[in-house]
Amino acid sequence: MPVIQVTMLKGRTVEQKRKLAERLTQAMVEEAKATKEAVTITFIEVSREDYASAGVLMEDRK
Amino acid sequence: MPVIQVTMLKGRTVEQKRKLAERLTQAMVEEAKATKEAVTITFIEVSREDYASAGVLMEDRK
Amino acid sequence: MPVIQVTMLKGRTVEQKRKLAERLTQAMVEEAKATKEAVTITFIEVSREDYASAGVLMEDRK
Amino acid sequence: MPVIQVTMLKGRTVEQKRKLAERLTQAMVEEAKATKEAVTITFIEVSREDYASAGVLMEDRK
Amino acid sequence: MPVIQVTMLKGRTVEQKRKLAERLTQAMVEEAKATKEAVTITFIEVSREDYASAGVLMEDRK
Amino acid sequence: MPVIQVTMLKGRTVEQKRKLAERLTQAMVEEAKATKEAVTITFIEVSREDYASAGVLMEDRK
Repeated sequence: MPVIQVTMLKGRTVEQKRKLAERLTQAMVEEAKATKEAVTITFIEVSREDYASAGVLMEDRK
Repeated sequence: MPVIQVTMLKGRTVEQKRKLAERLTQAMVEEAKATKEAVTITFIEVSREDYASAGVLMEDRK
Repeated sequence: MPVIQVTMLKGRTVEQKRKLAERLTQAMVEEAKATKEAVTITFIEVSREDYASAGVLMEDRK
Repeated sequence: MPVIQVTMLKGRTVEQKRKLAERLTQAMVEEAKATKEAVTITFIEVSREDYASAGVLMEDRK
Repeated sequence: MPVIQVTMLKGRTVEQKRKLAERLTQAMVEEAKATKEAVTITFIEVSREDYASAGVLMEDRK
Repeated sequence: MPVIQVTMLKGRTVEQKRKLAERLTQAMVEEAKATKEAVTITFIEVSREDYASAGVLMEDRK
């Protein structure tokens, strides 16, 4: 049932995404009584120039 | 008026997206009385390692 | 596989949403070879003060 | 850095959301090396008539 | 052309949203050469228990 | 606090995104009393075949 959209910087490995998919799903099942089969996750990867916080692009930090 | 965001696996052809755009828009107009000009659609394409269901990446299925 | 997020004005009936769910799903299956069971749709309803086009809230149109 | 949008059915308690926020954040930190302070989560709650899978509204299941 | 989805806490007045719609649109037109008529904005309002940062719900801060 | 997701056509320069990040954040702070540090922005870039309005892909216009 839940749909989880994760927007994050590019560069995570497949193994990291595999673990994320497992743990995010598990959290939904254990804490929110979601049905495991119904949890859908999408990872939307953006580059450092496509992410800003406090008005500043990641690209421009440090 | 409606904004439709479609997150799907990479690999659809332009012709498939053209048809999707037509039919999704038409459904909004005919079933929900949306104004055709006001329907906006975005396709966000992700790869098989960026999509998970039931805690498993598409990449890892079969 | 596809996740469809539809953001639209409040006020559609359950019957309209039922038809929308059917037709949007059907379009994904027929035009994009999606597996029917894998199509997830969410309707996010907003009020007229939460939707703007060309810089003007729907609330302020006519 | 990551932004997590969770779209789920209405009805979870504050305590459930509190746990979800903790665990989703923890997963991002431990598996994807995200900075804890940079993880933002939004829960978008929808009703059973605003969620469909396989072309059928949750409202119409069983 | 751009679609802007703003997820924010409930409680802004219509006047605040009106100003936001104007200014966000203006920024897209002036800085990114967007066509004014093509800018669509949606405000998705969430409550304090539906927004978390650093693993903590807004509800639980202070 | 606010999360702003901007879906737009590919092709803006880093300088354009830098200005957008500044101005969108500033608008949230000045008009909606958001805390500057809490404004997160993501730019999701799509190509002309991934954006449709009035049922027609950008790719097919003109």
